[in-house]
Amino acid sequence: MRKSKNVTIKDIAKALGISPSTVSRALNNYSDINPETRDKVIEMAKKLNYVPNIFAKGLVTNKTKRVGLFIEDLEREGIYGVFYYEILTSFRKAAMDNGYEVVLLSTTSEEQKRVHFDTVMQEKQLEGAFVMGLKTDDEYLNEIQKSTYPVVLLDIPIKNSNIGYVTTNNLKGAQIATEHLIHLGHRKIGFLNGHKKAYVSQERLNGYILALSKNGISIDNELIVEGDFTEESGYKAADYFLEKGVTAVFAASDMMAIGLIKRFKDLGVDVPAKVSIVGFDDISIARYITPTLTTIRQNKSEMGKSAFYLLLNLISKQPINHIVLEPELVKRESTARLR
Amino acid sequence: MRKSKNVTIKDIAKALGISPSTVSRALNNYSDINPETRDKVIEMAKKLNYVPNIFAKGLVTNKTKRVGLFIEDLEREGIYGVFYYEILTSFRKAAMDNGYEVVLLSTTSEEQKRVHFDTVMQEKQLEGAFVMGLKTDDEYLNEIQKSTYPVVLLDIPIKNSNIGYVTTNNLKGAQIATEHLIHLGHRKIGFLNGHKKAYVSQERLNGYILALSKNGISIDNELIVEGDFTEESGYKAADYFLEKGVTAVFAASDMMAIGLIKRFKDLGVDVPAKVSIVGFDDISIARYITPTLTTIRQNKSEMGKSAFYLLLNLISKQPINHIVLEPELVKRESTARLR
Repeated sequence: MRKSKNVTIKDIAKALGISPSTVSRALNNYSDINPETRDKVIEMAKKLNYVPNIFAKGLVTNKTKRVGLFIEDLEREGIYGVFYYEILTSFRKAAMDNGYEVVLLSTTSEEQKRVHFDTVMQEKQLEGAFVMGLKTDDEYLNEIQKSTYPVVLLDIPIKNSNIGYVTTNNLKGAQIATEHLIHLGHRKIGFLNGHKKAYVSQERLNGYILALSKNGISIDNELIVEGDFTEESGYKAADYFLEKGVTAVFAASDMMAIGLIKRFKDLGVDVPAKVSIVGFDDISIARYITPTLTTIRQNKSEMGKSAFYLLLNLISKQPINHIVLEPELVKRESTARLR
Repeated sequence: MRKSKNVTIKDIAKALGISPSTVSRALNNYSDINPETRDKVIEMAKKLNYVPNIFAKGLVTNKTKRVGLFIEDLEREGIYGVFYYEILTSFRKAAMDNGYEVVLLSTTSEEQKRVHFDTVMQEKQLEGAFVMGLKTDDEYLNEIQKSTYPVVLLDIPIKNSNIGYVTTNNLKGAQIATEHLIHLGHRKIGFLNGHKKAYVSQERLNGYILALSKNGISIDNELIVEGDFTEESGYKAADYFLEKGVTAVFAASDMMAIGLIKRFKDLGVDVPAKVSIVGFDDISIARYITPTLTTIRQNKSEMGKSAFYLLLNLISKQPINHIVLEPELVKRESTARLR
């Protein structure tokens, strides 16, 4: 570390003719300091270029102002990177606005094997964590449920006094996707769901069923297929849906929707003239493929921001423990009225 | 922070019947400890679930094992997010593999105004930083050049004993893109460059000029246009290139190439039958647009990994201060032989 003449709390106290403990309490925003004094202290701290020593501070206050951000490493050539990147940058911004530092951590299976969740939290002296991209069979999910650290999960509806989650209303998203197709005259609507290791899958299935039921269309289990969110699983499911004579498919991810479109193109089946397609997520590619993809937008920037504020609530033992964001239908070229 | 019975260095020392200072030196990997003792200490530390207190450690050793990762927040609907996300995850992984913690920081103009670069580094007790997405007129660029902290820059060729950079060979990338078009028979080749605030732009211009010169094609300044890397600037440049009668365009970003393709589609100009297009970057969208985009791939995962190892070199005062990665031509549908 570079050597520099460090200005201390004592220097600020001396310059203002007040006690060091008053300066310390003012800088740490204690409520018993009058606002005028606090402003004077902050002004002088700025003037003298005071830099708090976070290590010393961590030892004294036990408040580290550090949170962990657990991310998955990239898989499948980075298609979903942009989804996570947007959540990550908005989380970081909200943390910064509140004087919190974000430490980047990982939920790769390698890392989950290497070290326990609580050990990471303790080692890194984190006050809490936001965890993205966990699956139902991940070891960290068990460990988090046993942990006493404040944790916010993305898209996993587990909550108690120290665990909360941020998610999109997946049932509603699936419902408005399916209703959009019904309003266009479709009755034989296939559903390509994600795998069961994702919590969102059950909710999306419920939304699809609810939309059909509400509109007096009976549920045909043969039209419901389990994919795994990837383009390949969309590509593979296309033939089956054709065989079943569907006129529309709702896919639980944009990448599966894109796989369906690709296979239909290869087979000479026109989208949307012959088959309408709706995706889920609104990743950037959705606007660039041909035809452009009708989809359900998840508000990624709001997800990151909400995750931070929820975490702050859990850290300060507030009773709020989950935030559900509203999905939005984005109509583009891949859906059309049934002919 | 949670209370838990913390195992200390003294407990390990007691269990092994050796001195606490020997344990400390073994755990901090000092070279004067014999390997057998070190192994015994590490084994016992694991057995007792010893967790080092990094705050106390930071105060004592001045080695914090923390580095900063400065990123830009998302702009322009996140198209480039995936580019940065891939660099970010590979940087994080390399850091983790070497026992370093990554603190997420930002180069937004707001943040650059709020706090000096050196102040961030000091406040966060960072040993060094990797900085992505800076422009030539950014305040942090001046501050980094005056700083004594080890810093690795992405795509900005500044180097001295504590500053280094990771970049793609942009001259070569532009050269092979242009040569690809020349080999397909094109002679009237437009070049849509990025803005001059990006260091890569001069290099790419040089590569374009070199390829033409080497192949005996004279440089026509009227065929060189300055864009700003965005889809819009590609869309706007398309008419001009048509007017000039080019048969091919090399664009210095995939998004500009996509803008060109979009405008040509709107005008009924077939790509690649009438105009061939080459992009730069190989972002994920390049594989999903119609026609799929021929482009120059930057090895993003290698960029992140190299950036970390370079930073480690600078921190330990090794003489290596830059790494230049090789670009790769990815041939797809947007380029064809001149008819």
